[in-house]
Amino acid sequence: MSILIKNVNVITMNKNKDIIEDGVVVVRENLIVDVGDKSLISNYSDCQIIDGEGGILIPGMVNAHTHASMVVFRSLGDDVPDRLQRYIFPLEKKMVDEQLVYIGAKYAIVEMLLGGVTTFADMYYFEDEVAKAVQEAGIRAVLGETVVNFSAPDCKESYGGLDYSKWFIEKWKDSQLITPAVAPHAPYTNSEESLKKIIQISEKYDVPIMMHAAEMKYEFEDCIEKYNMTPMAYLDSIGMLNERFVGAHLIHVTDEDLKLIKERKVGISHNVGANAKGGKGTAPAVKMYKSDMKIGLGTDGAMSGNTLDIITQMSLVGKVHKLINEDRTLFPASEIVEMATIGGARALNMDDEIGSIEVGKKADLVIMETKSINMQPIYDYYSALVYSANPSNVDTVMVNGKILVENKCLKSLNIGQIMYQIKSVREKIQKFGF
Amino acid sequence: MSILIKNVNVITMNKNKDIIEDGVVVVRENLIVDVGDKSLISNYSDCQIIDGEGGILIPGMVNAHTHASMVVFRSLGDDVPDRLQRYIFPLEKKMVDEQLVYIGAKYAIVEMLLGGVTTFADMYYFEDEVAKAVQEAGIRAVLGETVVNFSAPDCKESYGGLDYSKWFIEKWKDSQLITPAVAPHAPYTNSEESLKKIIQISEKYDVPIMMHAAEMKYEFEDCIEKYNMTPMAYLDSIGMLNERFVGAHLIHVTDEDLKLIKERKVGISHNVGANAKGGKGTAPAVKMYKSDMKIGLGTDGAMSGNTLDIITQMSLVGKVHKLINEDRTLFPASEIVEMATIGGARALNMDDEIGSIEVGKKADLVIMETKSINMQPIYDYYSALVYSANPSNVDTVMVNGKILVENKCLKSLNIGQIMYQIKSVREKIQKFGF
Ligand SMILES: [Zn+2]
Ligand SMILES: [Zn+2]
Repeated sequence: MSILIKNVNVITMNKNKDIIEDGVVVVRENLIVDVGDKSLISNYSDCQIIDGEGGILIPGMVNAHTHASMVVFRSLGDDVPDRLQRYIFPLEKKMVDEQLVYIGAKYAIVEMLLGGVTTFADMYYFEDEVAKAVQEAGIRAVLGETVVNFSAPDCKESYGGLDYSKWFIEKWKDSQLITPAVAPHAPYTNSEESLKKIIQISEKYDVPIMMHAAEMKYEFEDCIEKYNMTPMAYLDSIGMLNERFVGAHLIHVTDEDLKLIKERKVGISHNVGANAKGGKGTAPAVKMYKSDMKIGLGTDGAMSGNTLDIITQMSLVGKVHKLINEDRTLFPASEIVEMATIGGARALNMDDEIGSIEVGKKADLVIMETKSINMQPIYDYYSALVYSANPSNVDTVMVNGKILVENKCLKSLNIGQIMYQIKSVREKIQKFGF
Repeated sequence: MSILIKNVNVITMNKNKDIIEDGVVVVRENLIVDVGDKSLISNYSDCQIIDGEGGILIPGMVNAHTHASMVVFRSLGDDVPDRLQRYIFPLEKKMVDEQLVYIGAKYAIVEMLLGGVTTFADMYYFEDEVAKAVQEAGIRAVLGETVVNFSAPDCKESYGGLDYSKWFIEKWKDSQLITPAVAPHAPYTNSEESLKKIIQISEKYDVPIMMHAAEMKYEFEDCIEKYNMTPMAYLDSIGMLNERFVGAHLIHVTDEDLKLIKERKVGISHNVGANAKGGKGTAPAVKMYKSDMKIGLGTDGAMSGNTLDIITQMSLVGKVHKLINEDRTLFPASEIVEMATIGGARALNMDDEIGSIEVGKKADLVIMETKSINMQPIYDYYSALVYSANPSNVDTVMVNGKILVENKCLKSLNIGQIMYQIKSVREKIQKFGF
């Protein structure tokens, strides 16, 4: 049976950024089959009806970079100087196993769904466990096993992620919801040899490469010293940059780098909250957006950015760039909603399938309710989404035609069990001590 | 009957910043009469019990600067360059009357209460209407009628706010919940003569002066040109700066100004969200905090900062200063919670009465629930409050010993009516056109 969504203001995010007030969207199987005004209703007699009650219907949001399972460490190691050495590495070495990754991923996916994220891009260890959680929850995801030059939780040998990746890609390449990928950690934690192997894997299987790049000041400086090239130029010199490459952060980039990013059609995850909280700086997102680069928004892991929804990022991204550039007109709200939806889809090369509300696209949809006190009055839908909303305003979430959240409640999974599991994991981590 | 709050983790914000896990707070009439661990329970037999269910009990948050009634214009004029001329002035001239101020204030107060704000500082026109809404809602407030050098909604003559202020202060000076104040708009919209009259009023009645100051670049430059003094030095030269003065913004201040602000014991409302969104710059809040100045957080009006809760400001303030200073250790979460509570109380000279959970203080209390997906896991309460929480996590709000919000629902007012009224006002404003 088809589903007809009515009594919503539709933010289409199509090319013209059309808005249909009091609009209607019809979903059949996993696809959007009709979009229009309320006169459409009479064409459909035998549908399941969703009444949006005057809410705002938007394309499902895309979290273009995260490490979902790290949510188990949320609120640990904030504000300390030596976080990586003092917390993250020892924690991951001792604590991260299949079970933790699975429990963390499931929890994080629930948080993302309840916050209106319908697609997320993830890199971590034991990514097969994340894939299981994705399948159970019914969310859409791009998943890549991390490849690093040291003994990692998934393999005592360095670069164990390479073999894991091949196996993982083979296993998931025909999945409906999962796009397997390969995920070198960063330029400074991978040898040229390993990066070249990664390029081969990406070409052979035609899968994305997801990678932290140009994130750290020392990364930039070391790269100049070692290769006399910026990190982005170095990656390009070994053949890494192409339309399959999705770079997380891209803070320390020169104007030459920006040209390269644009020419090579590199995808960008702009992780403004995590980067600000880490005192790392800000990617030149205004330039990236204005040059029509493929730029979306990401949260990074919950030890960096704490929350995993994209609404919180929307509220931040405009403010940060307006402030830095001392210009209140930069990044108007409509551009921010664009980055949060179709922009993220472009970064992940999924914009043919998702990211806008158009006939033929996958039915990944979110209704934001407008009945809560923080949402009224509304003179401009984009402003309301970016400056007024918070994740608690997400009312209904559909992924691939299935309703996963309804009336702010998770439909498919047992949230009580998930909360219980995270608390047990927390107990274990707390006992481990620091 | 007394009220006993149990099963909460108490963030006292006393001098030692003590945290009492699984703590108890007892309230009698409008005062906190006992604070301690759960062994206290046996001392109190005949109390109304509030079970916090493992939530976090914090002092009620203080919104140290806003224009509550402007919420009726929320989402209007965002991202445009000439907002003041194109929207705010014409809108206020045509639309602002007693009724709009009353309806807007009531709506804003409900939003603040549901977001955990128990005290707010407000300056606008027809402040007596705001006072009425405050009385009905039972929130605590510092209210000042705006004084400006042009024809304002409350008076065709310029400086009409002066007479209004005297009348208003006389009327409300003995109120329990309302502290009347006097509120010159800004240095650049008041003559020296009017400012001197304001100082007299403030001295005569011993009331706060609330004022925008050092907010605009042009304000700073014009002041230098006209007086060869910075705005803060100019205000000091006419005798304005003292412990009764509460400055909003204070962005464009020199190190000399900072000394002055400290010496004169000036209160500061740091409005980071509104200032960032307006592309105006950022006050040197780190220096202000580290020099033990009286600094709290404010939202400004909803045309500037859109939301009126302080939790959203907490999540922003650390990120902005860490980013600008490229230092992830600046403004650790505990300092941010301090600014949001006792810091705001200090800025308004109310820290003897409110801002911390200590015996003898007024019972202004907030329970943040920790059951929602975004709040877990918790290794650090301050981190959870600052980096994980959003206003929807506010569960219970008490002001002056009265429970105003329970289970996330408003107890005292009819929220349906308030939502209806804001929609009618919105229709009128929409018809007015731009
Ligand atoms: Zn990352
Ligand atoms: Zn203001």
